[in-house]
Amino acid sequence: MGGDIGLEIIIPAALKILKKHTNVKLILVGVQSEIEYFLDKNSYKSNEKLCIHHASEVVAMDELPSMALRKKKDSSMRVAINLVKEGQADACVSAGNTGALMATARYVLKTLSVIDRPAIINAIPSISGHTHMLDLGANVDCNAEHLFQFGVMGSVLSKAIDNIEKPRVGLLNIGQEEIKGNDKVKEASAMLSSSSLNYVGFVEGDDVYLGGVDVVVCDGFVGNVALKTSEGVAKMISHYMREEFSRNILTRFVGLVTVPVLHAFKKKIDPRRYNGASLLGLRGIVIKSHGSADVFAFSNAIEMALLEVEKSVPDRISDGLEAMLEKG
Amino acid sequence: MGGDIGLEIIIPAALKILKKHTNVKLILVGVQSEIEYFLDKNSYKSNEKLCIHHASEVVAMDELPSMALRKKKDSSMRVAINLVKEGQADACVSAGNTGALMATARYVLKTLSVIDRPAIINAIPSISGHTHMLDLGANVDCNAEHLFQFGVMGSVLSKAIDNIEKPRVGLLNIGQEEIKGNDKVKEASAMLSSSSLNYVGFVEGDDVYLGGVDVVVCDGFVGNVALKTSEGVAKMISHYMREEFSRNILTRFVGLVTVPVLHAFKKKIDPRRYNGASLLGLRGIVIKSHGSADVFAFSNAIEMALLEVEKSVPDRISDGLEAMLEKG
Repeated sequence: MGGDIGLEIIIPAALKILKKHTNVKLILVGVQSEIEYFLDKNSYKSNEKLCIHHASEVVAMDELPSMALRKKKDSSMRVAINLVKEGQADACVSAGNTGALMATARYVLKTLSVIDRPAIINAIPSISGHTHMLDLGANVDCNAEHLFQFGVMGSVLSKAIDNIEKPRVGLLNIGQEEIKGNDKVKEASAMLSSSSLNYVGFVEGDDVYLGGVDVVVCDGFVGNVALKTSEGVAKMISHYMREEFSRNILTRFVGLVTVPVLHAFKKKIDPRRYNGASLLGLRGIVIKSHGSADVFAFSNAIEMALLEVEKSVPDRISDGLEAMLEKG
Repeated sequence: MGGDIGLEIIIPAALKILKKHTNVKLILVGVQSEIEYFLDKNSYKSNEKLCIHHASEVVAMDELPSMALRKKKDSSMRVAINLVKEGQADACVSAGNTGALMATARYVLKTLSVIDRPAIINAIPSISGHTHMLDLGANVDCNAEHLFQFGVMGSVLSKAIDNIEKPRVGLLNIGQEEIKGNDKVKEASAMLSSSSLNYVGFVEGDDVYLGGVDVVVCDGFVGNVALKTSEGVAKMISHYMREEFSRNILTRFVGLVTVPVLHAFKKKIDPRRYNGASLLGLRGIVIKSHGSADVFAFSNAIEMALLEVEKSVPDRISDGLEAMLEKG
């Protein structure tokens, strides 16, 4: 266990999950003495549902993935993923270095036989609930086949998690008439069109938030920029709102009476509710929590892992893509 | 004159500009009888500062750029750009079909000798004022050299328009550690680093809104997605705010007292203030207004044209890039 967030977040989140789900067992991977210290601090009483697996090293947030992979054989991240590989754990949840997590998971677990590249997917709040978007940064250069596979994986996840029979899958593009998209996007669109997916065609950046689609497919560069840009807009809006509400005594009063309404509003798009990105396409379940998650957010990442285990997401991806390949 | 917005917007905006800038002459290009009708309606009295140039055709918003270019030789768009080419006008402002405008401008005016690809740039509101971002959709596939040229053009525009001596130029990238960006972005970064630009290095999507940079460079696919995604976030936030404020009689009252504050806030990030994207890299000045501009927004697009004329933006781009090439 490492990352920006420490055991003061992870331990209470883990205990919260154990209390809620009585059939769940958790293995805490990290430096044993530290874990024990924080378990003590949280008045934890020994319980067969929770065990500690010692790992002596931690991957730093700024560590190069290749270095982490080569040098940190006993990092909490590596050991936790090993447990998944060996079947001792059904899923791994980490708030650590994304690049290292993806590289390690890919190296240890391997990708599913039908998948070329794993991708990072997350739910993003929208007007009608949320939209699943992938890839969010694992692959900076993708070809049409990769985008097609992302479409299949996104559809499987959305079906499993959201219980949507035929998730609407859109391919992210730009709205310039003739020069609509580049060759890669056009080719991927043709592949998605002739598949059995509920492919709704090209969507634009704003569609991620407007609720007309369940899954948005894009390459990792574009997806990551879109996500970060969205964060920027939200930060700017919040900055200017704060500025206006603190302008004078009257606006401060208005700000005060507005608090409950703004609070209800913020709850709707609270990023903590959506914490827990899935590394899809691997032979195992790996969930990435945001590096600055709090207890509520981190427990949601664990919930995401539980849901994927329950729904056997990796098997469903294999089955889904194989069925399509047989048909094709 | 065509596009989504009609003469009921363009004519009052033109008259507003003439009133404000007594040294400016405007040529209204379009169907003469229609223009006369709307001038009449706006109580316009004949004036040497304004003349009409008849054009019989209009490019539809959904028309293919190549078709517009080949078939619509007497479209208002084509005729207006011809006037720039012939030196009868210093700039062209259009609210029409972006793809057709770019294709026509490129065909008629040609690109500057030092520029491979024209780009679309616009100011985007940020915490500290605004950020210029390019390309916003003219080029779906760019190489490193194109991105470098966008950096030069953006820097020239920001210097000319914002009076910043050394605009801070950032290259849009994603924050994944090792796999930081694709080869194209890495190569462009090396070129920008060794230039005389005030290149600040890689920036991420949220930096567009956080005010630490004056110019953000990216390819047209990524830029367009980022822009559209931002629109989506803003729409979603506004949707949920409206929903919360109309929940019950109490929240409706709160909404009412909040109106002036929210109004002041909205003014800060009012997209109408930023209306007027520049088609940079051409041998002439062409400004694209948003298709749904109102009088205030459209007059801002004309203001942008006036400013670029005053500052001789195309010449400055040529000079700037030539100076760099000589040094290199």
